[in-house]
Amino acid sequence: MVASSADKDYTYIPKGYTIPDDSVYFHYTTNNTIEGTQMHGLPATNVPLVADMSSDILSRYVDYNRFDLIYAGAQKNAGAAGVNLVIVKKDILGKVNRKLPSMMDYRTHIDNGSMLNTPPVFAVYVCMLTLRWLKQQGGVPVMEKQNAEKAKLLYDTLDALPLFTPKVAREDRSLMNVVWIMKDPELEKEFLSACKEQGMVGIKGHRTVGGFRASLYNALTIDSVKALTDLMTDFAKRKG
Amino acid sequence: MVASSADKDYTYIPKGYTIPDDSVYFHYTTNNTIEGTQMHGLPATNVPLVADMSSDILSRYVDYNRFDLIYAGAQKNAGAAGVNLVIVKKDILGKVNRKLPSMMDYRTHIDNGSMLNTPPVFAVYVCMLTLRWLKQQGGVPVMEKQNAEKAKLLYDTLDALPLFTPKVAREDRSLMNVVWIMKDPELEKEFLSACKEQGMVGIKGHRTVGGFRASLYNALTIDSVKALTDLMTDFAKRKG
Repeated sequence: MVASSADKDYTYIPKGYTIPDDSVYFHYTTNNTIEGTQMHGLPATNVPLVADMSSDILSRYVDYNRFDLIYAGAQKNAGAAGVNLVIVKKDILGKVNRKLPSMMDYRTHIDNGSMLNTPPVFAVYVCMLTLRWLKQQGGVPVMEKQNAEKAKLLYDTLDALPLFTPKVAREDRSLMNVVWIMKDPELEKEFLSACKEQGMVGIKGHRTVGGFRASLYNALTIDSVKALTDLMTDFAKRKG
Repeated sequence: MVASSADKDYTYIPKGYTIPDDSVYFHYTTNNTIEGTQMHGLPATNVPLVADMSSDILSRYVDYNRFDLIYAGAQKNAGAAGVNLVIVKKDILGKVNRKLPSMMDYRTHIDNGSMLNTPPVFAVYVCMLTLRWLKQQGGVPVMEKQNAEKAKLLYDTLDALPLFTPKVAREDRSLMNVVWIMKDPELEKEFLSACKEQGMVGIKGHRTVGGFRASLYNALTIDSVKALTDLMTDFAKRKG
């Protein structure tokens, strides 16, 4: 482990750390779904990169050639839970000395065309539909633009209203998962009820961090974000 | 390996084999989906039993107490592909000395209420619906009766028509997957076309064994079997 932001409850991305040149690889998670942090650039290193992109894959441009291994659960931007996407450079395979269970060896899956066992057909089918939809929308460039707009609208609103406090350092804020708190626990409950009245559910933060979390995955429209920010503005006016 | 039926292309279940009393466990597959064989009784042994019940779970009465570990893919009688059912006696866990990946260690899944990672929600949901349906139908006893009737109808028809030849030894025939061949490859093509004309697809045998295969899982009605046997009888009359 080259760096940690445990000192401030993981509310920022560490900077200024050094990745030893003789590292076998550098692993990182591009977006932290729970804490709402995101690494906006690539780590400054030449060692092989391994990334968990579960919660921001297909949301923005990425130079895939820089990575030796990318893995991502489909359930955020790619489809339904139950299928995983793996992009791996073949020349990094076969370097583990201990005996691997066949299911955990990417080579087995490659040799069998991702059909070593009966594939989770419905989840794969939903990925196909989602990818077709993504293409129709204009692909990743259009998603990237829309995701930036959605996040800007929500963060600008949070920054403008003293009632709400974004948890994450400005430069490390996630465009996918926006996490904030309210100073008064009583107001938190009231705000949650106001959301529910408007049909907005699932906005309560992850049980490990509390507060609130709004996820802005590809499928979410800017109108949905607008509905939330309108509610926030109105709520702040009433409580201000 | 205590026995094999490789000598006759796996068309029967070996008999008369001995399971050494000092075996750590005895593993077997209760029903062979591809070959169409099924073990109708329990192996004669007191060593712990481990069974892959993927293709006949919930199709018949089983004395679950006799097993230390049962696993089954859901996609035959329990639900949709992408979820697995595991029934395990807790006291057999933790006996592996080598380091297990957490995903391959049942204890990790038990400790996390089967939600170590994001569960395949749709596949789990389909299992729930299927189990509710099973209950409404009268449960496993009703399924067992219907499955026996369906299999009898199909095997009786195959046995009565010289054009068709069941591949599996009579006493080892599967009630779930009925496999047969036709002596004339030209007639095989013609029969397949006749099935297709009647809207019956997927009846071609697994690519590794050829011939034909009709699967009679819980969800298949006796009327569907009747449609197939009527077609067979009619086809045999025309070709006889």
